Amino acid sequence: MKFNISKTDGFARRGVVSFDRGEIQTPAFMPVGTNGTVKALEADNLLETGSEIILGNTFHLMLRPGDELIKDAGGLHTFINWSKPILTDSGGFQVWSLGEIAKISEEGVRFQSPYDGRNIELTPERSIEIQNNLGSDIVMIFDDCTSYPSSHEDAKKSMELSLRWAKRSKNAHQSKSALFGIVQGGMYTDLRTQSLESLMDLDFDGMAVGGLSVGETHQERVKILDHLAPQLPKALPHYLMGVGKPEDIVEAVYYGIDMFDCVLPTRNARNGQLISSFGELNIRNAEHKNSSEPIDPDCICKVCKNYSRAYLHHLDKTKEILGSILSSYHNIFYYQTLMSQIREAIEAESFAKFIKDFYNKRQKLVPEHLQ
Amino acid sequence: MKFNISKTDGFARRGVVSFDRGEIQTPAFMPVGTNGTVKALEADNLLETGSEIILGNTFHLMLRPGDELIKDAGGLHTFINWSKPILTDSGGFQVWSLGEIAKISEEGVRFQSPYDGRNIELTPERSIEIQNNLGSDIVMIFDDCTSYPSSHEDAKKSMELSLRWAKRSKNAHQSKSALFGIVQGGMYTDLRTQSLESLMDLDFDGMAVGGLSVGETHQERVKILDHLAPQLPKALPHYLMGVGKPEDIVEAVYYGIDMFDCVLPTRNARNGQLISSFGELNIRNAEHKNSSEPIDPDCICKVCKNYSRAYLHHLDKTKEILGSILSSYHNIFYYQTLMSQIREAIEAESFAKFIKDFYNKRQKLVPEHLQ
Repeated sequence: MKFNISKTDGFARRGVVSFDRGEIQTPAFMPVGTNGTVKALEADNLLETGSEIILGNTFHLMLRPGDELIKDAGGLHTFINWSKPILTDSGGFQVWSLGEIAKISEEGVRFQSPYDGRNIELTPERSIEIQNNLGSDIVMIFDDCTSYPSSHEDAKKSMELSLRWAKRSKNAHQSKSALFGIVQGGMYTDLRTQSLESLMDLDFDGMAVGGLSVGETHQERVKILDHLAPQLPKALPHYLMGVGKPEDIVEAVYYGIDMFDCVLPTRNARNGQLISSFGELNIRNAEHKNSSEPIDPDCICKVCKNYSRAYLHHLDKTKEILGSILSSYHNIFYYQTLMSQIREAIEAESFAKFIKDFYNKRQKLVPEHLQ
Repeated sequence: MKFNISKTDGFARRGVVSFDRGEIQTPAFMPVGTNGTVKALEADNLLETGSEIILGNTFHLMLRPGDELIKDAGGLHTFINWSKPILTDSGGFQVWSLGEIAKISEEGVRFQSPYDGRNIELTPERSIEIQNNLGSDIVMIFDDCTSYPSSHEDAKKSMELSLRWAKRSKNAHQSKSALFGIVQGGMYTDLRTQSLESLMDLDFDGMAVGGLSVGETHQERVKILDHLAPQLPKALPHYLMGVGKPEDIVEAVYYGIDMFDCVLPTRNARNGQLISSFGELNIRNAEHKNSSEPIDPDCICKVCKNYSRAYLHHLDKTKEILGSILSSYHNIFYYQTLMSQIREAIEAESFAKFIKDFYNKRQKLVPEHLQ
């Protein structure tokens, strides 16, 4: 993996991550393919939206269909028919999401499969093994996601455990794929700095910011991003895990983030929440019943070109699968269009103007910290 | 609408039905788009499968989103983004399917909307009006589907009511679209002949065989098809409504049927039943868990080209929408491939050989009545 930055505008960066399997223009959005499919979308659809990399979930795929099965099938790319790069998470966030039923020890995390009840242990070594079995292009270290809220003491303990796991992940990682570290430390800036500095000694290929989107306030997240922005290693791609809404992405790019993933565009699509340059619209609302308008008149995707809000409203009402397909397609297309516009703005060193226009179109004030 | 037959082989016919919106090569299979979408498939997908005409349901569309709304949206073709021909059924079969809750009178059928409880009356005149509002290319007469089993007396009464409704449908039909009659008469050959002869006096553009796939035995259906085959008007396309399995289609082509529709390929797909030239396979079976084989090694569709049974098994297990999408695509592709092979066989006057090969591949004996 190589990373080249062609332009910066403040902390915002315009770059390219290169793999044998293809290039990723950054800032980049990675659609989430939890179970080996970005929900409701085929590979061809994803390519049409401009997606250049997708995310696969270690936790889900190790349980169903199993990483050995996928390895035997030629790896995740072959299994799911996606020839471009794939980033896999480490399972750390998902086992953390299990809550009480996951038992954390120095060794790793034990839990019962929600599908067949069998006992499973996920350790740094096992997580890396799974990700290599999947044939991931970007492997993530196995980390302990710090709960929110946490005392400074608990956040420190969790962060230090993550660091020890980071070392074990690094030692276990023997393939040619890229390996990213994950900064933890909860809502405490001193812990975030400690985490980042220790990770930098381990020589990772990219640096992720974890432990956000866990229930914190917007202000707290901004505080962490603002604190990390000048410290994140300039030569590495910066990945903000699990974020977020279009506003969150624009904001994080401002703080120097290069890569994003989030289930929001596909999950919201299946719930009738469509995203446009003017904000969100709920296609279930009666106001769309007779509307011949497209979702977003500024969008050039095939859904906006070929279908009315009335038709999408009808598909949602009748619970037709095509509703989920078209809505997911549009939402991912919107996200990729947003990323493309962000990249153009950085190239033109006009990201500040972009932010202003972005908020204006949504009839919102530009937040002070982005001005 | 024009219909030209280029070749016959026994009763089997090879033809072309021409509309302003395009041509249909016959024998033809029409995927069913009940709610204004062939379930889980986009228009582009359908075109790739070789589908040249789809079916829309008057009963469903009049209730949701309503035929007036679709008319205002520019008609069903525009609303659902399908530019090729559409055949609409008359709603007769669906209101019959409602059973007891539908009240049949000379005037028509009264029932309550299953969605909002409002009282609805469907008459021949209203059915034709709806189909014209939808902008259908082939309008079906409103008929009374004869229950199975029925006494000769009841079947006669029902058939005669259908004939009176056929006349009213014909009188109500003032648009340029084609209008097809529907032969009824239950399992009684004398009633079928009476129905057909009376309909022929009304000068329809095509002749459908209705009242089958209602619970009758295979032998009974064959009896009716065998009886009607020499009587159906040679110059008109013959449409067997709601049929059926691949074997049923091959058999009916033998008896001179030109057009088919059935929900089977899409419904079965959503239930994990995949159709191949070797017969059916249930992708849910554990035997497919590790299979790197495609659904059908003889199939050239993108699903068989790009995905293994193991992946489709996984998508089904995880209830992923993509499973329904890919399975529906393959099943419709299989049906259209079958139709294409049938057409080639008739053109080559080798339909008897085709039937033999078709059954051999499925490791079944050719039924005696087709030899």
